[in-house]
Amino acid sequence: MPTSAPPGNRFERRRAETRHALVRAARQLLAETGDTSASIQTIADRADVGFGSFYNHFESKTDLFDAAVSDALEEFGQVIDERVQGIDDPAELVAAGFRLTGRMVDSHPELMRILRDHGLAHIHSERGLAPRALRDIQHGMASGRFTCADPTMALSAMGGTLLSLVALRLARPDLDGDGDEAASNLAEMVLRMLGVPAGESHDIARRPLPGLA
Amino acid sequence: MPTSAPPGNRFERRRAETRHALVRAARQLLAETGDTSASIQTIADRADVGFGSFYNHFESKTDLFDAAVSDALEEFGQVIDERVQGIDDPAELVAAGFRLTGRMVDSHPELMRILRDHGLAHIHSERGLAPRALRDIQHGMASGRFTCADPTMALSAMGGTLLSLVALRLARPDLDGDGDEAASNLAEMVLRMLGVPAGESHDIARRPLPGLA
Repeated sequence: MPTSAPPGNRFERRRAETRHALVRAARQLLAETGDTSASIQTIADRADVGFGSFYNHFESKTDLFDAAVSDALEEFGQVIDERVQGIDDPAELVAAGFRLTGRMVDSHPELMRILRDHGLAHIHSERGLAPRALRDIQHGMASGRFTCADPTMALSAMGGTLLSLVALRLARPDLDGDGDEAASNLAEMVLRMLGVPAGESHDIARRPLPGLA
Repeated sequence: MPTSAPPGNRFERRRAETRHALVRAARQLLAETGDTSASIQTIADRADVGFGSFYNHFESKTDLFDAAVSDALEEFGQVIDERVQGIDDPAELVAAGFRLTGRMVDSHPELMRILRDHGLAHIHSERGLAPRALRDIQHGMASGRFTCADPTMALSAMGGTLLSLVALRLARPDLDGDGDEAASNLAEMVLRMLGVPAGESHDIARRPLPGLA
């Protein structure tokens, strides 16, 4: 889970730990129940902090759950970003992002349930994978690798398709061996959508992934 | 709102009306609050039926909300289906479906909020627009109009992209004049994804819509 650099003194450290415990509890509740109906008391108990501490960190329950979704999306972006280090081609980056996301349904199920339930509202977010994906689309358009007309619309289509992959893999865990075939199929279609020729889209979506070959 | 044919006798008619009132109340609550936290008493009051009537029709609140989502998705499918009557080309059907959905954000906002919040779990549903869209994809593949490999995956990508359009239009009502430019852009990308050549995808996504030209 992403954490900021450890703050300087004991008071600040303690304060950061309390906030972190509340966010973690909210993330667990989101993943388990899919909704935000838990009471502040339930959340504080789960985080093992006093009820009164809550309002030192958050104005409302909505405020905390927003922070929990942001925290999950940021972790998602970081995990993908780390794993695609060394890939330069924007088309390969898109394909690897899809396939690594498919695998995260097995390795990070809690995170993926939050992404499924709340991702649609965050496709154009300034945190998480969204700004990284937008940057890749823009690089691809600048180099001529992608021929789509509008990077914002391309991000919408790509984000919606990625969420459909997450929903499908969560709903049908036995879909295929490791879920990679569904992810490759969807990555291939997104590359075609971005203007990569059909044969090349097919091949790129099935190349060995870095560190996983 | 879709209703079945009026049942024969007064008792059955009354019974159908009560069920319909409960489903309509649940749909309103889903659209207003985005969640299913309302109590059965609240729902019964809203529907103007007795608390005890609830269990004559539904086993649980979950059962009612599932019926409400199905009812909304079925209405969505019927609205689109009626408006695309007379279009035969699967590529034109896909493009018209996207653009008419974009317009429904203005004409049917309640329905579109339910679609945004619950659609991802119903992309492969047997009700609503999903089976109609799957049929169009299969027709397009059989005639060679579409060259995608797998109709189920194409439906995933198309459904996810459609939901991203609904989310974007609801989040940014001032995005463009009547939202048609975003819908056309996304329709164009989905057609490319399905294997329709780029120039043709661009043109088809901008043709006059039937009855709206």
